[in-house]
Amino acid sequence: MDFLSNFLTDFVGQLQSPTLAFLIGGMVIAALGTQLVIPEAISTIIVFMLLTKIGLTGGMAIRNSNLTEMLLPVAFSVILGILIVFIARFTLAKLPNVRTVDALATGGLFGAVSGSTMAAALTTLEESKISYEAWAGALYPFMDIPALVTAIVVANIYLNKRKRKSAAASIEESFSKQPVAAGDYGDQTDYPRTRQEYLSQQEPEDNRVKIWPIIEESLQGPALSAMLLGLALGIFTKPESVYEGFYDPLFRGLLSILMLIMGMEAWSRIGELRKVAQWYVVYSLIAPIVHGFIAFGLGMIAHYATGFSLGGVVVLAVIAASSSDISGPPTLRAGIPSANPSAYIGSSTAIGTPIAIGVCIPLFIGLAQTLGAG
Amino acid sequence: MDFLSNFLTDFVGQLQSPTLAFLIGGMVIAALGTQLVIPEAISTIIVFMLLTKIGLTGGMAIRNSNLTEMLLPVAFSVILGILIVFIARFTLAKLPNVRTVDALATGGLFGAVSGSTMAAALTTLEESKISYEAWAGALYPFMDIPALVTAIVVANIYLNKRKRKSAAASIEESFSKQPVAAGDYGDQTDYPRTRQEYLSQQEPEDNRVKIWPIIEESLQGPALSAMLLGLALGIFTKPESVYEGFYDPLFRGLLSILMLIMGMEAWSRIGELRKVAQWYVVYSLIAPIVHGFIAFGLGMIAHYATGFSLGGVVVLAVIAASSSDISGPPTLRAGIPSANPSAYIGSSTAIGTPIAIGVCIPLFIGLAQTLGAG
Amino acid sequence: MDFLSNFLTDFVGQLQSPTLAFLIGGMVIAALGTQLVIPEAISTIIVFMLLTKIGLTGGMAIRNSNLTEMLLPVAFSVILGILIVFIARFTLAKLPNVRTVDALATGGLFGAVSGSTMAAALTTLEESKISYEAWAGALYPFMDIPALVTAIVVANIYLNKRKRKSAAASIEESFSKQPVAAGDYGDQTDYPRTRQEYLSQQEPEDNRVKIWPIIEESLQGPALSAMLLGLALGIFTKPESVYEGFYDPLFRGLLSILMLIMGMEAWSRIGELRKVAQWYVVYSLIAPIVHGFIAFGLGMIAHYATGFSLGGVVVLAVIAASSSDISGPPTLRAGIPSANPSAYIGSSTAIGTPIAIGVCIPLFIGLAQTLGAG
Repeated sequence: MDFLSNFLTDFVGQLQSPTLAFLIGGMVIAALGTQLVIPEAISTIIVFMLLTKIGLTGGMAIRNSNLTEMLLPVAFSVILGILIVFIARFTLAKLPNVRTVDALATGGLFGAVSGSTMAAALTTLEESKISYEAWAGALYPFMDIPALVTAIVVANIYLNKRKRKSAAASIEESFSKQPVAAGDYGDQTDYPRTRQEYLSQQEPEDNRVKIWPIIEESLQGPALSAMLLGLALGIFTKPESVYEGFYDPLFRGLLSILMLIMGMEAWSRIGELRKVAQWYVVYSLIAPIVHGFIAFGLGMIAHYATGFSLGGVVVLAVIAASSSDISGPPTLRAGIPSANPSAYIGSSTAIGTPIAIGVCIPLFIGLAQTLGAG
Repeated sequence: MDFLSNFLTDFVGQLQSPTLAFLIGGMVIAALGTQLVIPEAISTIIVFMLLTKIGLTGGMAIRNSNLTEMLLPVAFSVILGILIVFIARFTLAKLPNVRTVDALATGGLFGAVSGSTMAAALTTLEESKISYEAWAGALYPFMDIPALVTAIVVANIYLNKRKRKSAAASIEESFSKQPVAAGDYGDQTDYPRTRQEYLSQQEPEDNRVKIWPIIEESLQGPALSAMLLGLALGIFTKPESVYEGFYDPLFRGLLSILMLIMGMEAWSRIGELRKVAQWYVVYSLIAPIVHGFIAFGLGMIAHYATGFSLGGVVVLAVIAASSSDISGPPTLRAGIPSANPSAYIGSSTAIGTPIAIGVCIPLFIGLAQTLGAG
Repeated sequence: MDFLSNFLTDFVGQLQSPTLAFLIGGMVIAALGTQLVIPEAISTIIVFMLLTKIGLTGGMAIRNSNLTEMLLPVAFSVILGILIVFIARFTLAKLPNVRTVDALATGGLFGAVSGSTMAAALTTLEESKISYEAWAGALYPFMDIPALVTAIVVANIYLNKRKRKSAAASIEESFSKQPVAAGDYGDQTDYPRTRQEYLSQQEPEDNRVKIWPIIEESLQGPALSAMLLGLALGIFTKPESVYEGFYDPLFRGLLSILMLIMGMEAWSRIGELRKVAQWYVVYSLIAPIVHGFIAFGLGMIAHYATGFSLGGVVVLAVIAASSSDISGPPTLRAGIPSANPSAYIGSSTAIGTPIAIGVCIPLFIGLAQTLGAG
C-alpha cells in the first residue's frame, strides 16, 4: 500500500510540472477554440535547438565516458525498436477493420522516438533530481531507425506477398476463365505468355526492399540531423561556451512552448482518428504503457548487470513509450505509401504522445523513485 | 512649479528608456525608408511570450493574494471599458464627416487593451523602481472584453434602428407612391403583405445582438488566449522554473523588438489615416490622455479606499489609455463589418498607441512619482 | 620556425571554436543531404539581433570615447572599400571568359562587409582574450558603402562607354553601309538625323550615374539599418538594461545558428559556381586573404601611429576579407542588373565567406597573437 500511495503522490506531482502543464494547457485552449497559432518557423527552430542541445549534451558526455557501459542499453534500444513493430504486427494488425499496412506503419511510428517527448523526460528527471547518464539521449537513433526500417521492410514484404498471390489468382482466372480471342492483343507485342513470365516481369525490383535508403532518410530527417550534429560537435569540438550560455539555459522554456504546440496539435488530430477504426484508439492508449514497461524491464537488467542508472532506465522506458511525431511520418509516408496517414499520425499525435508525456513520464519516474532513485 | 519641473524631468527621462527608444527608433527608420522587416512569425511568438509571461506573473500573484483587494480595480476596469465606448459615441460620432459605426469601432478599439502597451508600462514601472500589484496585469481582460462587447452591441443596435427606420420609410414610400400593378409579383408568393409582416420577416434575428459570441471571440483571440493560459498555469501549476529561467529574463529584450515593430507599423499606417476624416487624428491624440486621466482618478479612489498601490494606479491608467492593436481589430472586423478599418486601425496603430506608450506612460509615471511613488 | 609553429597551433585551435565548428558542421550535414531547414524568419531575426547588438556596442562605446582615435581606421576602411573594387577591375576582369560587369559586381561584394563574418571575428577575439576597441564594429559601413558605390559607379561608366562605342559603330554602319530608301521611315518622324542627335537622344540620363540612391539603398538594407539603429540607440539613449539582459548574452548562441545556416548555404551554392568561369573560384580563394593582408598592413600603420589595438587591426583585416552575403546582393542586383548573380553571389557565399571565416579569422588572430596580442 505504501508503494501505491507513494507512487500516486509522485504521479500527481508530475502533472503540475511546467512540461505537462503546458501540454495539458495546449489541449485545453485548443478544445476551447483558441485562435492562437504558434508559427511553423518557431516550432521548427525550437525542435532544432532542443535536439542540438540533447546532442551536444550526449556528445560532451561520450567524449568523457566509458563506451563499454553504453553497449547493453544500446543493444536493448535496437531490440525494442524492432520488437515494437512486431507487437503491432501480431496485435493491432489482427483486429477487425484494421489493414495490415496501416498497423505496420502505426507500429513503426510507436517504435520510433519523439525528440520532444525525450526532452520532456530529461527535463522532468532533472526537476525530480533523479540523475541519469548524460549520454542517455544518444540512445534515440538506436531505437528510432531500427523501428522505421523494420516497419517499412515488413510492410513491403507483406505487400509483395499479397501482390504475388493476387496476381497469381488473377492470372489463374484470366487463363482459366477468359479465353483469349485471337487478335485481341493487337499491338501488345510484349504481353506475357506464361504466368512465370508475368510475375518476373511485373516486380523485378519490388521483391527486395532497399534498407539503406530508409536508414539514410531517417538520418537526414531534421530531428535526427540536429541531434547527430550536436553529438558530433560535442565529441569533436569545444562547444561549451554556446552550450552553457545558450542551448542549455533556453532548453526548458523552449520545451514549454513546444509542449503547448503538441497539446494543441494533439487536440486537432482527434478528429482524424474518428475516421479510422476505433481499435487504433485502444492501441494508442495501451501501447505506450506496454512498450514502456518492456523497456523498463530491460533497463532494470542493465541496471543490475552494468550499473545503468535508474534515471537512465526511465529514459529508455520513455523513448520506448514515445512515438515519433516530427521526423517519422515523412519517412513512413515515403516508405509505405499505401498506408493511411490518418491512422498512424492520428494515433501517434492525438493519443500516443499525450499518453507518453502525460502518463508514462510520471509513471516511470514514480516507479524509479519507489525503487530508490532521486 | 516644483511639481511641474519634477514632472518634466521624469517625463524626459522616460524617453531614453529602451522601450520608448525602440518605439521611436522604429518610427525613425521607417520614415527613412528602411527595408528592415521583422517577420510575422517573430512578432507572433514575441506577443505570445510577453502575454504568457504577464499571465504567469498575474496567476502566481493571484495564487498568493487576497482576492478581495482585487475587487475595486476589477470593477473600475469593467466600468472604464464600457465608458470609453460611450465617450466615443457622444464625442467622435457627433463630429462632421464621421460615420457612427466607425466612431463606435474606434471607441471599442481605444477601450480595448494593448498587451504590448501594458508590457511597456510594467517594464517602465520596474525601471523606475515603482512597485505595483503583481496581479495588475490580470486587469487586462476585465477592460478589454467589456469595451469590445459594448462597441459591437451598441453599433448593432444603432444599425438595426437605422435599418428599421429606412425600411419603414421605403415601405411607406412603396405603399403610398408606387401602386402595385396586378401580376407584378409573378412568382414572389411570399412577398409581405403588410408593413408589420415585412419588418418581422426581414430582421428576425438581427434585432437581438448576441453578446456571448463576442465575449467568446475575444477570449479566443491570440493575445487573450496566451494571457489567460499563463494566468491559469500560474494559478493551478508550478511554472516557477520556466518563468524564472525563460519568460521573465527574456521579457524586456523581446519587448524592445516588439516596440520597434510597432514603431515601424505606426509610421506605415499614417497614410491610411489621411484617407478618413481628420477628426480621427484629433480624437486619437486626445482620447488616450483623457481615458488615462479618468482611469487615474478612479485608481486613486481605489488607492485611498483599499490601498491599491500608486504603481497599480499607473497600470490602470495606461491600460485605459492603450488601444488594442493585435487582437481587437479582427474581433471588430467580424462584429461591425460595415465599419471602415482604415479609420479605427489607423487611429489606433498610427496615433493612439504611440501616444499611449510615448506620452501616457511617462506622464502617469511622472504623476505617480510626484504623488510619492517609487 | 617558432613563429610558424605558434601560428599553426593558434590556427588549428580556432577550428574547434563554436563559431567555426558550426560553420563546418553546416557544410558537412548539407553535403550529407540533410533535410534540416532553418526557416527564413529565424535567420532574418538572428541577423537583426546580431547587428543591433554590434550597433549598440559601438554606440555605447562611441558615447564614451575619443572620436579622433577613430579617424585613421575610418579613413583606411573607406580606402579599402574602394581599392578592393579596383583590384577586381584589374585582375578578375582581365581573365578569360570573365565579363567586366560580373567582375565589378564580384569586387563590390568582396569589398562590402558581412555582418555575420564580423560577428564571428568579434566573438573569436573574445574567446581568444584579445581586446579590441568596442567601436571597431562601427567601421562596417565605412567600408561597405564605398565598395558598393564604387562597383556600381564603375560598372555603369563602363557600360555607358561600351554602349556609346557600339551605338556609334552601329550608326556608323547604318550610315555607311545601309543606304536608306526614301519612304522607309513612314511614320517615324522623330528619327534622328545625325549621329550626334542619336547619341544625345538615346542616353540623356544614363551618362551620369546617380551616387546618392546607391548610398541610400545601402543604408536602408536590413543589415545596415539594424546596425545603424543600434548605433544611434547606443549613442543617444540608455539601452544598457536590454543590452546586458538580452542582446549581449544571446549573441554567441544566435551566431552559432547563423554559422550553421551559412555553412549549409555555402554548400548549396557550390553548384552555381560551376556554371560560371572557373576563374571565380581562384579569385574567391585568394581575394579574401589578399584583402585581409592589405587591411592588416594599413591597420598596423594605425597601430603604430595612433595606438589602434592589435584586436582592432584583426577586425579591420576580417571585414576587408569578408564579402557581403545578406545586404550586398540586392543592392548590386538593382545597381548592375546586367551582372550575373550566379557569379558574384556564388563566389561570395560558397567560397569567399567560408574562407573569410574559416581561414582569415584564425589566420589574422594567429598573426596578432604572434605579434604580441592577447
